[in-house]
Amino acid sequence: MTAKSDAPFSRVHIVGTGLLGTSIGLALSQQGVSVSLEDTSPSALALAEDYGAGHKPSSDDDAPQLVIVATPPDVVVDVVIASLHAFPQALVIDVASVKAQIQAALRAGSTDLTRYLGTHPMAGRERGGAVSARSDLFVARPWVICEGDSDSTAAMEAFVRSLGAIPLRMNAAQHDEAVALVSHLPQLVASLTASRLTGSPQATLSLAGAGLRDVTRIAASDPALWVQILSANAPAIVSQLTALRLNVDQVIEALTSLGEPGSRKVLATALQAGVSGVSALPGKHGISTSYSSLVVVIDDKPGELARLLTQLGDWKVNLEDLRLEHSPGAMVGFVDLTLGKDVVEDVEKKLVASGWRIAGENA
Amino acid sequence: MTAKSDAPFSRVHIVGTGLLGTSIGLALSQQGVSVSLEDTSPSALALAEDYGAGHKPSSDDDAPQLVIVATPPDVVVDVVIASLHAFPQALVIDVASVKAQIQAALRAGSTDLTRYLGTHPMAGRERGGAVSARSDLFVARPWVICEGDSDSTAAMEAFVRSLGAIPLRMNAAQHDEAVALVSHLPQLVASLTASRLTGSPQATLSLAGAGLRDVTRIAASDPALWVQILSANAPAIVSQLTALRLNVDQVIEALTSLGEPGSRKVLATALQAGVSGVSALPGKHGISTSYSSLVVVIDDKPGELARLLTQLGDWKVNLEDLRLEHSPGAMVGFVDLTLGKDVVEDVEKKLVASGWRIAGENA
Repeated sequence: MTAKSDAPFSRVHIVGTGLLGTSIGLALSQQGVSVSLEDTSPSALALAEDYGAGHKPSSDDDAPQLVIVATPPDVVVDVVIASLHAFPQALVIDVASVKAQIQAALRAGSTDLTRYLGTHPMAGRERGGAVSARSDLFVARPWVICEGDSDSTAAMEAFVRSLGAIPLRMNAAQHDEAVALVSHLPQLVASLTASRLTGSPQATLSLAGAGLRDVTRIAASDPALWVQILSANAPAIVSQLTALRLNVDQVIEALTSLGEPGSRKVLATALQAGVSGVSALPGKHGISTSYSSLVVVIDDKPGELARLLTQLGDWKVNLEDLRLEHSPGAMVGFVDLTLGKDVVEDVEKKLVASGWRIAGENA
Repeated sequence: MTAKSDAPFSRVHIVGTGLLGTSIGLALSQQGVSVSLEDTSPSALALAEDYGAGHKPSSDDDAPQLVIVATPPDVVVDVVIASLHAFPQALVIDVASVKAQIQAALRAGSTDLTRYLGTHPMAGRERGGAVSARSDLFVARPWVICEGDSDSTAAMEAFVRSLGAIPLRMNAAQHDEAVALVSHLPQLVASLTASRLTGSPQATLSLAGAGLRDVTRIAASDPALWVQILSANAPAIVSQLTALRLNVDQVIEALTSLGEPGSRKVLATALQAGVSGVSALPGKHGISTSYSSLVVVIDDKPGELARLLTQLGDWKVNLEDLRLEHSPGAMVGFVDLTLGKDVVEDVEKKLVASGWRIAGENA
């Protein structure tokens, strides 16, 4: 294999052939990079090799320039140290989803960490191991790089970009606090809310709408994986949960003393803070802005959604977001289109003129 | 105007011309039903009339057969009682989103409630007043009817069906407990989680993915409306929040004592309960079943999504659900298709063969 001239590293060694390791291997192999693979499970290793993620190390291999530690979090520290010793010329990175605990453990040892960088690709949505691996798993996803030696960091940024990802520099503590808020807290909130549904009568659940589905969707995530993630970032998550619990307490207090002056204001303030919070999330392409949504009713049959979107495409309408919602008991669906505020009125008129039914519009 | 023969009521009076009242008026007027409108706000009334939701009452009107009280919750009781007296032949219903408090207040009075029914159309997702009204707002949505006199209940079921909604019988307490769980709890959870985002650094928010967006989406709802809803169903919501808080406490306790035996099991149990809960939600058309999702990468330009869906339509693939996600900083989007488990593998092969990039597959 010949390395493409723009690949930042032409020889890469990957330890751990789960979803992340195998996906990186696939992407690099497709670029012509020489990838050697290692895993404590011979069958997992063979599977990743079959997928085309790389080859088993051989004595003919030149020394790797980059070693990627993509093992489960609980062995990352040992593998990073072993890799720094085994490959004395290589940059060594890990891709674990929590960073400070690993960094602290590494710093507590005597190994020189100049050639090490902690990183985290934000592409953990997919499940499963190598079988779920994709060479484009990282395309357009943020990939956090904890700041280290400046040459190494710059090389890592180039590497991350070569996989289609967006490099973001952040220190380990910042990263862990950030993911506690934007990833770990929502996961727990979704799981705990969804757990309240267990054992509910079917009649109760039949009233569920899009709101409940949204809030609980990620509760379907793999519990075993999440126990590891939560355990590795416990202090930051406890801090988020404690703040949330305080807010829950305030709402409970307000709801149990509605006769007291100020109770309804507590509720209004809590709800208004939610409006502010959700509007702080960056919109499409990182730009925070305001959109409107338009809900269109479609018949629930193949091709209807395509027909709607073809029409929108013909009108050069670019969707900011789109959601399809099916209604319990009915053979129609609702398509919630998110559009720029400047075009929504025009689009609605055109749709109505073309015979589409509009079920609602949200500011 | 001539009433269609299949309309259960040919003369309807609507008190309150907000989103619900105006939407009902629009739907009925389109069916040829004679609709008279009433509102304490002359301008709101004029707007609803301009929209075609009905006409101002005149001395020529025959007495209505149905009176719909669609006022804000805090005046529903008074308006229902006044309507029962003013229209001694009519069935009187309200459409408020919380039922037991209203029912108790009505029963505490001396008015005969034989001609009254409490109801709740589950179509409160849309915002705004009459300007957001749509004649098909209720199509395929559940509409709860609190059981009352059997003839009235049967007539109400026919009426609800004539608006395209799905009637569901439930008593007031069951209804309020159900919506506390499937609507009010998720709203609060979303709002409180979103409120944690306020003031976060842009770098933190830039790591937000689909999970956080899902969990916090409904936090954008109108606070003033929700203060009323929450206040009217306080005991049931407090019960849900208290149970949630207990679970939050358990997770905090487990995360702060990870060294203790059993701590990780507490986390795993909480997460697993979430998996069970979300899988208890009814799927498309009320059928609870298992789907797979397939994430396809598309270029972010008008027409790409339509091209994908046209292809799926050509293959007669029916989507269970669809979500479009845009990636911060990138000019591509991810389309998360939810498909029956039996077809997902075949669809994936066909898509890849047609040149589409697959970014992941979830069980």
